[in-house]
Amino acid sequence: MNGAQMHALVERLYPLCRSITGNGVRRTLEIVGEHIPLEIFEVPTGTEVFDWTVPQEWNIRDAYIADASGNRVVDFQQLNLHVVGYSTPVSARMTLEELRPHLHTLPEHPSWVPYRTSYYAPNWGFCLAQDTLDAMPDGEYEVCIDSTVEDGSLTYAEHVVPGQVTDEVIISCHTCHPSLANDNLAGIAVAVALAQSLDNPYYTYRFLFMPGTIGAITWLARNHERIGKVKHGLVLACAGDRGQLTYKKSRRGDADIDRVLRYVLRERQHKVVDFSPYGYDERQFCSPGFNLGVGSLCRTQYAGYPEYHTSADNPDFVSPQAMEDTLAVCREAFSVLDRDRRYVNLSPYGEPQLGKRGLYDSLGGRSDAKETQMAMLWVLNFSDGEHSLLDIAQRSGLPFDSVAAAARALQGASLIKE
Amino acid sequence: MNGAQMHALVERLYPLCRSITGNGVRRTLEIVGEHIPLEIFEVPTGTEVFDWTVPQEWNIRDAYIADASGNRVVDFQQLNLHVVGYSTPVSARMTLEELRPHLHTLPEHPSWVPYRTSYYAPNWGFCLAQDTLDAMPDGEYEVCIDSTVEDGSLTYAEHVVPGQVTDEVIISCHTCHPSLANDNLAGIAVAVALAQSLDNPYYTYRFLFMPGTIGAITWLARNHERIGKVKHGLVLACAGDRGQLTYKKSRRGDADIDRVLRYVLRERQHKVVDFSPYGYDERQFCSPGFNLGVGSLCRTQYAGYPEYHTSADNPDFVSPQAMEDTLAVCREAFSVLDRDRRYVNLSPYGEPQLGKRGLYDSLGGRSDAKETQMAMLWVLNFSDGEHSLLDIAQRSGLPFDSVAAAARALQGASLIKE
Amino acid sequence: MNGAQMHALVERLYPLCRSITGNGVRRTLEIVGEHIPLEIFEVPTGTEVFDWTVPQEWNIRDAYIADASGNRVVDFQQLNLHVVGYSTPVSARMTLEELRPHLHTLPEHPSWVPYRTSYYAPNWGFCLAQDTLDAMPDGEYEVCIDSTVEDGSLTYAEHVVPGQVTDEVIISCHTCHPSLANDNLAGIAVAVALAQSLDNPYYTYRFLFMPGTIGAITWLARNHERIGKVKHGLVLACAGDRGQLTYKKSRRGDADIDRVLRYVLRERQHKVVDFSPYGYDERQFCSPGFNLGVGSLCRTQYAGYPEYHTSADNPDFVSPQAMEDTLAVCREAFSVLDRDRRYVNLSPYGEPQLGKRGLYDSLGGRSDAKETQMAMLWVLNFSDGEHSLLDIAQRSGLPFDSVAAAARALQGASLIKE
Repeated sequence: MNGAQMHALVERLYPLCRSITGNGVRRTLEIVGEHIPLEIFEVPTGTEVFDWTVPQEWNIRDAYIADASGNRVVDFQQLNLHVVGYSTPVSARMTLEELRPHLHTLPEHPSWVPYRTSYYAPNWGFCLAQDTLDAMPDGEYEVCIDSTVEDGSLTYAEHVVPGQVTDEVIISCHTCHPSLANDNLAGIAVAVALAQSLDNPYYTYRFLFMPGTIGAITWLARNHERIGKVKHGLVLACAGDRGQLTYKKSRRGDADIDRVLRYVLRERQHKVVDFSPYGYDERQFCSPGFNLGVGSLCRTQYAGYPEYHTSADNPDFVSPQAMEDTLAVCREAFSVLDRDRRYVNLSPYGEPQLGKRGLYDSLGGRSDAKETQMAMLWVLNFSDGEHSLLDIAQRSGLPFDSVAAAARALQGASLIKE
Repeated sequence: MNGAQMHALVERLYPLCRSITGNGVRRTLEIVGEHIPLEIFEVPTGTEVFDWTVPQEWNIRDAYIADASGNRVVDFQQLNLHVVGYSTPVSARMTLEELRPHLHTLPEHPSWVPYRTSYYAPNWGFCLAQDTLDAMPDGEYEVCIDSTVEDGSLTYAEHVVPGQVTDEVIISCHTCHPSLANDNLAGIAVAVALAQSLDNPYYTYRFLFMPGTIGAITWLARNHERIGKVKHGLVLACAGDRGQLTYKKSRRGDADIDRVLRYVLRERQHKVVDFSPYGYDERQFCSPGFNLGVGSLCRTQYAGYPEYHTSADNPDFVSPQAMEDTLAVCREAFSVLDRDRRYVNLSPYGEPQLGKRGLYDSLGGRSDAKETQMAMLWVLNFSDGEHSLLDIAQRSGLPFDSVAAAARALQGASLIKE
Repeated sequence: MNGAQMHALVERLYPLCRSITGNGVRRTLEIVGEHIPLEIFEVPTGTEVFDWTVPQEWNIRDAYIADASGNRVVDFQQLNLHVVGYSTPVSARMTLEELRPHLHTLPEHPSWVPYRTSYYAPNWGFCLAQDTLDAMPDGEYEVCIDSTVEDGSLTYAEHVVPGQVTDEVIISCHTCHPSLANDNLAGIAVAVALAQSLDNPYYTYRFLFMPGTIGAITWLARNHERIGKVKHGLVLACAGDRGQLTYKKSRRGDADIDRVLRYVLRERQHKVVDFSPYGYDERQFCSPGFNLGVGSLCRTQYAGYPEYHTSADNPDFVSPQAMEDTLAVCREAFSVLDRDRRYVNLSPYGEPQLGKRGLYDSLGGRSDAKETQMAMLWVLNFSDGEHSLLDIAQRSGLPFDSVAAAARALQGASLIKE
């Protein structure tokens, strides 16, 4: 899946009204399922998941504010951000003054519509441009939200790429945001493309498409026994804007995923930030009871761009090139992670004689030792069970690929073992 | 006690002739006792304290060098620095040449009188201005030191502010210097004001007023069984000059007191220096057998100003503002230390649902998360029994007060425990 | 042995045709043995040493390429670098075209002759200046290499300076390079001078003169049981060029030898580099099965100068002053290492009373504490069994000599013990 294809997927998913539950999520997963096979999970309202309870399901068919002439001045059909997520149903006539406490605008960006939700406190409201509000005369309006908040279920999906081992890497992205492109349709698109690109990986890769917070908590609660298998993970969000890449470290700070991402990003313009307990679902994976080696990859970070959580985060805000670049970093990172293992030198007393195995030049005295030979010496010397190939690549300054190739050659010659 | 009151205390204590023993110390402690209740300890001459023995007690009534006309050219009544501390009694007539080996001056500051002692080697001497010496004609002088060095006792005092726990913080200042204002009457004054300001602290605070070296060693020898209770400590000295604050770390270097002081000083002009086995009584508290978490707070450090140990260290050399500033840092430091504890998150699997407990805004989607909410997320995530609230404040960049308030709220909601 | 004498030794050894075996090595050790007594070891061809086997012995009497007129255009008698080390015997006439695959030049330095070997793959060849090759007309040449490759032995030598303890320091230098002055006749000369200079050292010093790689591996294989005694070591190479000193750390990176060398070099222009598994015999001593605290001292490092492994590395390339400087650093380093021990304060509760032992001035109050007294306070405070005297010197900023002298005084007063 190239950048243009990822962008097309973003555009196709954009109009759907997603939330933490409901048919918008189901339809989104159907479309994703056209690209990669998904297993869909429905968790009933009322299910207890750690400290939380799966909420009632929200669905919405229509919503608007109409003026005295019956013109819809605010219309859900035009943009689903216009309704506060999880708004309870309303059908009423009220004056602008009565309506005002239910209206949300962004005065600093008067033409943009903000994104607001009220998942756990029953409420209703509209989000609109400040310009629109300013143009609304006093008087009476017809207010309609044709929604339901009823027992149902929370929907999430998994896509698994089996590996050579059952130890897992989880790739997670949130599916609960309505018409917001960078946050997080771009993350979904990159995850789909990444899943497609994996070819017989070492680790088992589990892709999680689920609503933020409650989805991750639900998944963790239902997969408690699997957590021991999760060795690494990455939360993908805001994967398509034109800013430079940002890697947010896991809570551990020195997990393998942290070291791999820093290594892969080292020659790109990028930013690395420490873990903080805010942002996306790394908050849950890195809660102290789990403390998983899960980092987060974004381009411009959460709340770091004005378009964040507004109608300006539309498909034009994300670019095919940026998504391709995010994908390339992911692919390189997991390629390194998949090969980054610790070996033990089976001939650790002095150097083994590489020459008699055809691994070393017979003509000595030259000052330009070859990278492949140097890589073998590095792997032999540091394969003491403590240093991984990535450690060796970083310490030696040699490319990871050369170090991994040297390890393969040495393993082939029975000079090292895993 | 404000800066003016601390300065008044310095001025009142200044004329007394203190030493490591004697009535000058007793009178000093009487005056301190007018401000805070003291328990006075008298340790008899000859008491063995570790490698040392409590020395004989020194008292002095008068001392002078009079010229041929009977004029006192050097007069203890004018300034007690004129006599070398612990001088043995003398009553003699001698020529200037005979006298000279017993005279101490500061040629580089010819109008200043130095401070000298000879506690453990019986000797006598006078300290005087180089200018005075230069003006003394050859000829005979009457030399008188009306002192006694006799069996008696070493005097020190404690003031205890009981805390919620019996674990202790010790605040120590030396009481053995005669007319020297910054070293250490300012330290005594700040200690008194600090003691008055403590209000139902968490730790038990023990203030120690005792002579340098032999006093600290005596206290340690007599309180060997208490040492296990001493969790933190601070030696106060040179607390009133106009220089910037200097914090000298404990020998451990990363004791709680070290981290707290560095935190509190971070936004002030200040200096932090590593532990060295010279200076004040941190030398004893941080000797390898004890290795206590005791740092030292000064303004300009020991021997770091020319007035150090001279008659120029008089009450004009210390300022009310500087003492108030030192006091403010101490109060803030102990306020942080008293609240800096480690908690354990009782709901560590994912985030607990703060909203249902009224601790989190119900309206989602905003990009300006509130500091109080952020502080709760930080405390929850890092309350794993390993990170203290100060760790969390430093890692999050949030004010310690916000972090401590979040911990209180979370403890109130039974989400964390100590 | 001063710089001039070391240089004379380099000049005397220079013409010999050394290799990893053979009579050139034996003659070299005879000459070294005129300066310091050596024990010579002969290890027969075919001896298995870890992953390697001691090879056949190579000896050479003559070699040349003669033109049609019988003129030797390339002549081993002029420069032994002209023959590829371990060349098998040849006696043939062949055209330049046939000869060319056996000729090695350095096009980037057309007047220099490179140094090449082929120890383990039977082969023959000549090294010559590019200028010489360019001047050789097409046509037939007489090619002669009068060498033997036969069962024999590998020769190495040890010189031991017994110490007060049987724990050992090894000093190693390679003896396998033919007419190359900096690499490594200068290293041999500095090692000889260093051995002569040691006078009743604390450690036992073992000097190893042996061929690179196979020699070190042979020594390690034959001394497996001694390795536990080897506490420190230094590989000497390239010890005489005019560049600044380079210290290459042991694989451990923080071995005592690493800390000592860094300390001794701190006030000189120098470079410290991390361990890498290439270079000289530190490769073997620091292989993961041994991981000894062995560093390497050079001036300009391996392959870091164009003259490396060429005929330009001749006696003019090394200077008496540079060898003296290398020697001075070695002597200072081993002087520190020999005295760098950990002590335990026998009076750790508070400071002991130094005054009553005559170790401290009786007159107090001065601000210019003496270095000797400060050094005693530092040694007392940090002699907790964990800090060595070098740690204390570095932490205090005091000269190591002062700290060591303080330790002697305190040990004499029974205040500390080893």
